[in-house]
Amino acid sequence: MSECAGGSASFPHPAGPSREVLLARAYLSRVAEPPASGLVALVAEVGPVEAAERVRSGHVDQRVATETSARRDVHRAAADLAAAEVAGLRLVTPEHAEWPGEALAAFSADGPGELTAPLALWVRGRGRLDRMCGRAVAVVGSRAATRYGTQLAGELAAGVAERGWTVVSGAAIGIDGAAHRGALAVGGPTIAVLACGADRAYPAAHQALLERILDGGAVLSEYPPGCVPGRHRFLVRNRLIAGLTTGTVVVEAGLRSGAQRTAADATALGRDVLAVPGPVTSGVSAGCHRLIREGATLVTRADEVLEAVGRIGADLAAPPVPGLDRATDGLSAAAALVHDALPARAAREAAWLALEAGVPVAAVRAALVELERRGLVQHFAGHWQRAAGSRP
Amino acid sequence: MSECAGGSASFPHPAGPSREVLLARAYLSRVAEPPASGLVALVAEVGPVEAAERVRSGHVDQRVATETSARRDVHRAAADLAAAEVAGLRLVTPEHAEWPGEALAAFSADGPGELTAPLALWVRGRGRLDRMCGRAVAVVGSRAATRYGTQLAGELAAGVAERGWTVVSGAAIGIDGAAHRGALAVGGPTIAVLACGADRAYPAAHQALLERILDGGAVLSEYPPGCVPGRHRFLVRNRLIAGLTTGTVVVEAGLRSGAQRTAADATALGRDVLAVPGPVTSGVSAGCHRLIREGATLVTRADEVLEAVGRIGADLAAPPVPGLDRATDGLSAAAALVHDALPARAAREAAWLALEAGVPVAAVRAALVELERRGLVQHFAGHWQRAAGSRP
Repeated sequence: MSECAGGSASFPHPAGPSREVLLARAYLSRVAEPPASGLVALVAEVGPVEAAERVRSGHVDQRVATETSARRDVHRAAADLAAAEVAGLRLVTPEHAEWPGEALAAFSADGPGELTAPLALWVRGRGRLDRMCGRAVAVVGSRAATRYGTQLAGELAAGVAERGWTVVSGAAIGIDGAAHRGALAVGGPTIAVLACGADRAYPAAHQALLERILDGGAVLSEYPPGCVPGRHRFLVRNRLIAGLTTGTVVVEAGLRSGAQRTAADATALGRDVLAVPGPVTSGVSAGCHRLIREGATLVTRADEVLEAVGRIGADLAAPPVPGLDRATDGLSAAAALVHDALPARAAREAAWLALEAGVPVAAVRAALVELERRGLVQHFAGHWQRAAGSRP
Repeated sequence: MSECAGGSASFPHPAGPSREVLLARAYLSRVAEPPASGLVALVAEVGPVEAAERVRSGHVDQRVATETSARRDVHRAAADLAAAEVAGLRLVTPEHAEWPGEALAAFSADGPGELTAPLALWVRGRGRLDRMCGRAVAVVGSRAATRYGTQLAGELAAGVAERGWTVVSGAAIGIDGAAHRGALAVGGPTIAVLACGADRAYPAAHQALLERILDGGAVLSEYPPGCVPGRHRFLVRNRLIAGLTTGTVVVEAGLRSGAQRTAADATALGRDVLAVPGPVTSGVSAGCHRLIREGATLVTRADEVLEAVGRIGADLAAPPVPGLDRATDGLSAAAALVHDALPARAAREAAWLALEAGVPVAAVRAALVELERRGLVQHFAGHWQRAAGSRP
């Protein structure tokens, strides 16, 4: 996936922040156990360098002190950056062009844990985060998956990856692993979000899988290099899986499972939750069925996933994926937005499309002319609809 | 179930109508092929005796004439009542205390086919209809059921029957039969609604099952004794299964199946549609999954069924909305069928609609013109689709 490969020139990214900022972010990323909403709010207020200085010197309010006092004298920023470089990791911060800021915008500077932004991401792999997260979907589920579940996770992941979407998951045994493998099987980019340092191969059984992900995708973590996984960290990590994507697909999950937490986080972040049904006699489908009863969209195929998340993805203004020969390549920005806004099968008026696409109605009309000339839409009686061949 | 057993004193019911009314209803029940919305409206207007007289003499408007002219000289009312008595059937009419009027109130006196009330019901069995239908749920599904489906149908039916609810189904092979058996297994009442005369054992393989249903439940039909089943009648019959119950549970159904029709009828009647999920790899779960995607409630256990229908059952005490003003009121039968067949959001060709609606393709084309004039459909490139405002 050449479009996802940053090349070695991106370690560190050329347009990156100063060494001072990098050191401050590295320090901050270790000083507090995520999610640290007080510290995140402080950084948003005074910037990372000043925030690091205040934490170091203890000049912080009670809330930030509670989050940082235990580790404020751990000065490993330079050592962590050096270790990261040796391990092939880069520190990606909000000051980097690669920062997936659009996807992470749903995190608030000061909110409850599941809405707390990461202070930085430690990233391994050749995929550029901002590009990959423009069109990304999470595929997650139970470690105790059935063959039915892993087969479906692989098929769904392959299906969305084939259409240019990045598959994000947690690299765990079971559904997560099957999802990553499904994306890799069709040469699609995939992101593994770990609950330990991104330099670690966890779970050990997935060492080879994690290596394969690096080629066109990324293995990342908000935990500094060397950090060990922990039960709490798996749950905290899940909010990043939800936050980096426009929708979360739960393939199999028990009634109490990490995937349920990811789904809850996705809901809190305003992202779509999708779930795959299964036999009601299967305990690992019970969580999916409960999610659907609570409002999640039932999906059985990749195109149903994209029907749900594609709508949202259109708003993310993702750059068109080069190198993929798509009917929509080379469209003007407005035409691409309008085309994305058109439902799969229903006809719509220009005014409706303007509202949905967020494009002025005059520009919508121009875009529709462009799309019609390309054979992508057809109209009748003032209504526009995707041309048969161009439906997703 | 003593509250359901009418005892021999209820054949005929002591508070029943006069012989004249019985004969008129028996005549009317044979003279028109259900659903006969014109005839139902006439009976609502002038009563059964006068309506029968007008039909016999041909003094009816064009619409009723179309419905009744073919059989208006078939005078078998007395013979049908005699045959019914021999076969252990009784004719239950709106003039009987046993008439399940509250449940059937959702049927309008004059509406499209799926909302057309039955003119009378031919009933066999010891259960009293009005009592049984006070708390009744339909459990329906595919003839080509899997073992998973029949097992679940039986469990769900037993679960709701144990809690005092009547299980209504169509006595077909597969899910229907399993539903009846599930109710009988816990001594619960169950109603089989047939698409042929209630004196017939159809399907033949279910002769013993139908006999067992009679003890505390009922086998009924709007078709007079001796009538044979037909493809059209199975679909028409389904509206009664939906109408006699507060909710319809679809356990397994292909994408095109009678159970889908029952679900559509339930929706039209304002009743809940529930569906049981299954493996996405199973073709007979595909219809259930589509129903859930379109808004049906996913259910996995009997208590989830009762959680859904119990709520609505409480609402049944409210008087029905008379003369509901629907955009589809007064449509020709073919137009109503075609409109019914149009999916909520997809466009279809006339040939497809003919297949789905069971209406000849020439009549489909005429119906589409009528629907377009009413603003209910729009077309482009040979495809027809519900107009935006007329979507359910």
